Amino acid sequence: MSADGDRASVPPPPSIQEASPDDNIKILLATDNHIGYMERDPIRGQDSINTFREILQLAVKHDVDFVLLAGDLFHENKPSRDCLYRTIALIREYTMGDKPVQLELLSDPDEGKADGFSFPAINYEDPNFNVGIPVFSIHGNHDDPQGAGSEGALCALDVLSVSGLLNYMGKIDLPISDAEAPTTGIAVRPVLLRKGTTYLGLYGIGNVKDQRMHFELRSNRVRMFMPRDKDNWFNILLLHQNRVKHGPQESVPEGMFDDSIDLVIWGHEHDCRIVPEPVAGKNYYISQPGSSVATSLADGEAIEKHVALLQIQGKEFQMTPLPLRTVRPFVIEEVILNEAAEEEGFDVSDQMEITKFLKKKVNALIEQANQLWDERNATAVEDGDEELPRMLPLIRLKVETTGVTETSNPIRFGQEFQGRIANPRDVLVFHRSKKAASKGAKVAIDQPELSIDDPNLTVSEKLAKVRVATLVNEYLAAQELQLLGEAGMSDAIQMFVEKDDTHAIQTHVAKALKALMKGVQGAEEIDEDEVEEMLVKAKEQQEKEYVEKSKEAKSTKAKGKAKAKDDETAESDDSMMMDIDAAVGSDFEEPDSDEPPPKKKAAAAKPKKAPAKAPTKKAPAKGRGKKAVVSESDDDDIIEIDDDEDEEEEAPKPAKRTNRAAVLSQPAKKAPAKKKAAAAPKQSQLTFAPAAGTGRSSRAAATKARGKMVVPDDDSD
Amino acid sequence: MSADGDRASVPPPPSIQEASPDDNIKILLATDNHIGYMERDPIRGQDSINTFREILQLAVKHDVDFVLLAGDLFHENKPSRDCLYRTIALIREYTMGDKPVQLELLSDPDEGKADGFSFPAINYEDPNFNVGIPVFSIHGNHDDPQGAGSEGALCALDVLSVSGLLNYMGKIDLPISDAEAPTTGIAVRPVLLRKGTTYLGLYGIGNVKDQRMHFELRSNRVRMFMPRDKDNWFNILLLHQNRVKHGPQESVPEGMFDDSIDLVIWGHEHDCRIVPEPVAGKNYYISQPGSSVATSLADGEAIEKHVALLQIQGKEFQMTPLPLRTVRPFVIEEVILNEAAEEEGFDVSDQMEITKFLKKKVNALIEQANQLWDERNATAVEDGDEELPRMLPLIRLKVETTGVTETSNPIRFGQEFQGRIANPRDVLVFHRSKKAASKGAKVAIDQPELSIDDPNLTVSEKLAKVRVATLVNEYLAAQELQLLGEAGMSDAIQMFVEKDDTHAIQTHVAKALKALMKGVQGAEEIDEDEVEEMLVKAKEQQEKEYVEKSKEAKSTKAKGKAKAKDDETAESDDSMMMDIDAAVGSDFEEPDSDEPPPKKKAAAAKPKKAPAKAPTKKAPAKGRGKKAVVSESDDDDIIEIDDDEDEEEEAPKPAKRTNRAAVLSQPAKKAPAKKKAAAAPKQSQLTFAPAAGTGRSSRAAATKARGKMVVPDDDSD
Repeated sequence: MSADGDRASVPPPPSIQEASPDDNIKILLATDNHIGYMERDPIRGQDSINTFREILQLAVKHDVDFVLLAGDLFHENKPSRDCLYRTIALIREYTMGDKPVQLELLSDPDEGKADGFSFPAINYEDPNFNVGIPVFSIHGNHDDPQGAGSEGALCALDVLSVSGLLNYMGKIDLPISDAEAPTTGIAVRPVLLRKGTTYLGLYGIGNVKDQRMHFELRSNRVRMFMPRDKDNWFNILLLHQNRVKHGPQESVPEGMFDDSIDLVIWGHEHDCRIVPEPVAGKNYYISQPGSSVATSLADGEAIEKHVALLQIQGKEFQMTPLPLRTVRPFVIEEVILNEAAEEEGFDVSDQMEITKFLKKKVNALIEQANQLWDERNATAVEDGDEELPRMLPLIRLKVETTGVTETSNPIRFGQEFQGRIANPRDVLVFHRSKKAASKGAKVAIDQPELSIDDPNLTVSEKLAKVRVATLVNEYLAAQELQLLGEAGMSDAIQMFVEKDDTHAIQTHVAKALKALMKGVQGAEEIDEDEVEEMLVKAKEQQEKEYVEKSKEAKSTKAKGKAKAKDDETAESDDSMMMDIDAAVGSDFEEPDSDEPPPKKKAAAAKPKKAPAKAPTKKAPAKGRGKKAVVSESDDDDIIEIDDDEDEEEEAPKPAKRTNRAAVLSQPAKKAPAKKKAAAAPKQSQLTFAPAAGTGRSSRAAATKARGKMVVPDDDSD
Repeated sequence: MSADGDRASVPPPPSIQEASPDDNIKILLATDNHIGYMERDPIRGQDSINTFREILQLAVKHDVDFVLLAGDLFHENKPSRDCLYRTIALIREYTMGDKPVQLELLSDPDEGKADGFSFPAINYEDPNFNVGIPVFSIHGNHDDPQGAGSEGALCALDVLSVSGLLNYMGKIDLPISDAEAPTTGIAVRPVLLRKGTTYLGLYGIGNVKDQRMHFELRSNRVRMFMPRDKDNWFNILLLHQNRVKHGPQESVPEGMFDDSIDLVIWGHEHDCRIVPEPVAGKNYYISQPGSSVATSLADGEAIEKHVALLQIQGKEFQMTPLPLRTVRPFVIEEVILNEAAEEEGFDVSDQMEITKFLKKKVNALIEQANQLWDERNATAVEDGDEELPRMLPLIRLKVETTGVTETSNPIRFGQEFQGRIANPRDVLVFHRSKKAASKGAKVAIDQPELSIDDPNLTVSEKLAKVRVATLVNEYLAAQELQLLGEAGMSDAIQMFVEKDDTHAIQTHVAKALKALMKGVQGAEEIDEDEVEEMLVKAKEQQEKEYVEKSKEAKSTKAKGKAKAKDDETAESDDSMMMDIDAAVGSDFEEPDSDEPPPKKKAAAAKPKKAPAKAPTKKAPAKGRGKKAVVSESDDDDIIEIDDDEDEEEEAPKPAKRTNRAAVLSQPAKKAPAKKKAAAAPKQSQLTFAPAAGTGRSSRAAATKARGKMVVPDDDSD
């Protein structure tokens, strides 16, 4: 947030991959693919799946070790059959294969596996599958677990996981239905991976309601099962929550995570802020990849969409944004009619003139969008990629009509642009109350999800959102249900509609009836005349309980809030509980001596595919160090491993973040590569080393410095 | 049908497997698993999935080459997530593995593969999957393809298929939605397999409406793409249609299939008639495995449920029924109250006495069912299997109440049996009109599917069936839709409800609107006043078209019927068109000489995994014969291959069918094995050789005899 200023065009640092490929974990990072979004739209129907294909192709092209996704792979909680079919086909096509997986799994491969079955949870550990590029993902709010079958709440990712196609992590143990008043916290069991000397921990937390996440964080109930030598690991936290505040506790603060985390991958927010941003007072960066398809025509979605090649080596990482070529160009603009009329000199009472002006505007936006596409295409072709046929752009013109009496019909207006834009039906949006968003500020705020008071929504979009909630409530209120409380029923119907959970109502009714039965059981013999009376009583009781429960939940929230206020002034370091002891006896062995455990622990973890070389006790780091001295002698940038990490406490040189914004637009070629031109990466790259000493205690910094890789002097910064 | 008489207890023939395992294709045969049936029932919810697990375990236990299913793997067209998850997990658990698949695929592995993807349609041909026991299946009427995504109509099996877990065959090319007036026939492309000297063709035809199947068969539009030497193959036809007549053309006659078929596997009908039955005047047998879970409490479902081990060697096959142990015991009986009252001497006007009598009856049925379970369990334990805990039985008592004024409440009656039976809510069914089914005849007719006029249905079951059709029609009739015809709308709603096709209505409306638009396009400028009038006109036109289309469809049917009548007297050999020439240029190579092609053709088919030994031109059969002479010298029953099939036309000895009914109850042990007792199979086995000369032309018989295996003299028959 603070670093936005120094956008100087510093030449990119050398690729850390070139230095030591055997220790370099390469990850294709993406999120919020929303496959199935508008799948029945004749123009945009294939957008989401096409871009997902592109992402998998990029994974293959960049020869990554795995694909990492942060939720909302699917747009619908119950993806259509077509959608599921094509997603499976794509994952099978691009991620299965002979390419050997070089990642050694150090955590339990059975963690989270299907109950009662023998195959492991991590697909590439199954000898029956030839996985080339594993895919790891948490769930989002769109594809979160629902229902309560014999297997508990399941989500679409569970189906992919049990098929052996995807590794689903970050499932919350607690049934989601009890999210309002959870009794236990959130347990986060990492996927622990090793490649050469690089140790990577993936900590996934699938989406839960923001209020709950907030509550759990504040209550120190997020239990991270970290290895004892956690600071020798590169730790990635994946989550899928609101980052932008939508109300009190309706987002998760950026600074609430543990200091052992090195990088937070933030899903859910749709604007691409994939270039890692530091967090004030914390030791980690946040990367927000953004969605790979625009699911609303809001400002944030207009930012050019990227995924990234994330490379990790030791405690260093490097992020190379990769522009997505199959994303429909999207241009959004706002005009204030009165102001425009003054400037351009037309009469706001003349509808024809307004329409003429707006058409001119839209035409200009189309022009702009097409140019955007052509430039993107040209750059790609220059880089040796094939040319893609032009896609119809998405255009959104927000029109502020305060003071204007008559406006044209937006749908009829859009028809004129049929065949030239992808969204003729909602190109125009009129609104009256001027919002805070200033004209022309395209990236002012992000609106990742549709919200009813979003001024960018068309009337029909708003209607679609409003209808369920209000109609159901009105209908139920009018019904005077005899047996069931209207309030609980409304929740159930909501679930039915929004998550396509066809059994939500049935489940609710069954539950309510069971509760009613209790009251009836007291009476020995039931007189038919009394039944009516009993029903009334029972219903009253039920409503009362519902209200009380709601109050309770609110008071819990309030308490959390009060606590939050207390905490806010204090250092938030302890806000995320590190359950180190809990880890002992689960996936991690007890160390057999009092020696500093870090290296030893990791090496002692049971080797899976490639057996880890057992380091000698005297020089625990040797085992890792050996591999780092790679034989690529023609590369000047060989990275050396600090072997004597227990004696020396050399503070790692904080690597500067390079031109963040420039990266997105400026190809690397313009910044001349210092050494061999051929070795220079196509894309701009950003290398990050942990920013030690940024407000942390010296003890923590010292711990952190242990075993850290040191980049030899280089003019890259 | 004719052979039902000779149920003499002939000792079972020797297992053909023992003779030559390398040529013996072993198949686990099952169908209609209806996974997900009543999945939310607290007692019966897991029945279908548990039995499917048992079936897969049997496949592993009997070391089969593959599993063959004939439709309705799933009960719901859109299986619940839980259901899909568990099915996938089970298939992965039991069918993936290192066991080498010994089946060489001779047909195109890409036939029916996912469009635009590189992986093959047959899972074990994909080097990225370690398939041990492939599963092949057609779709049924429950899990048939629906919808029209970008991939066309898809069914649940498509999802399993694209996951690499199941081989889906018998998909009908034509969109199902046009089933009423199809313009092309049904193309059947076989899966062609070879194991040693045995050549097996699997011809799958997934479920279509019976009327259509009837029409296609009568019109010679079922095009079977058979290899030229089809008679050297063992040809299995799989279908999923009504076998029992439900009305004119609402079933498929047994004798309508081509003579090159050796065995028809008939899915859809739920009563177990897995022991192959010959068809009068035809050369093939029909095996009807029946469902593996009772989906209605009808007589047919009470027959003990079996799957089978089907072994094929050359042109011979052997069927070993395997009783299913996890199927809930089900006993059904009918009482006529008036008669019973007379016999037992109670008063039919006294409700208490009736209830007492019925309770006694139900108790006796429970007793009977439990005994059934215990016997089944004891037999299995004797055979070395583990004991299973007793399952609550299904009990159905049909009560004929003609002349009885008052009867008790069936649901209240059933409550007494809670905890003792699995279906307390519907144990009792009252009906008045006496049906043709005679009392006590348990296996008289089969009722595979619920039908509204089924006397076995409870009121609520009937209501559930009736409601959609009638309510929708009544509602629509009352609405007087302005734009859309009620009739077409009703169809769409039916699809929506029965197949959970959420887009059926949308699709219909879009179509109807498009049609309406045509009418409107004529008018140059639309006057708002005229709109109403135009709508009325358009709607009238639409309704007229719908009626005409229906008439057309009916007349097509009538024509088909007339043709059927003509054909009925004639030999029906040509009723199924054999598109031999069509095969040339598709999967099959053109023979390069005029020599009799049979053996040569098959050998020329491109070898897949295990390359076929190229036979020399002079003795084309040698290649096969070699393998058949197995080295198991301690076995007297070595089967010899007729090497000189072109010179000699030795008529194969028709093998007698052995005790059909006895098989189900009488373990093989009672019939002393002639040779080593250890070699005698546990289950009774039935060996079938083609019944040559049963009403076929001598030419056909001669063709059939070519290359047939000859069983050496043996006292087995």
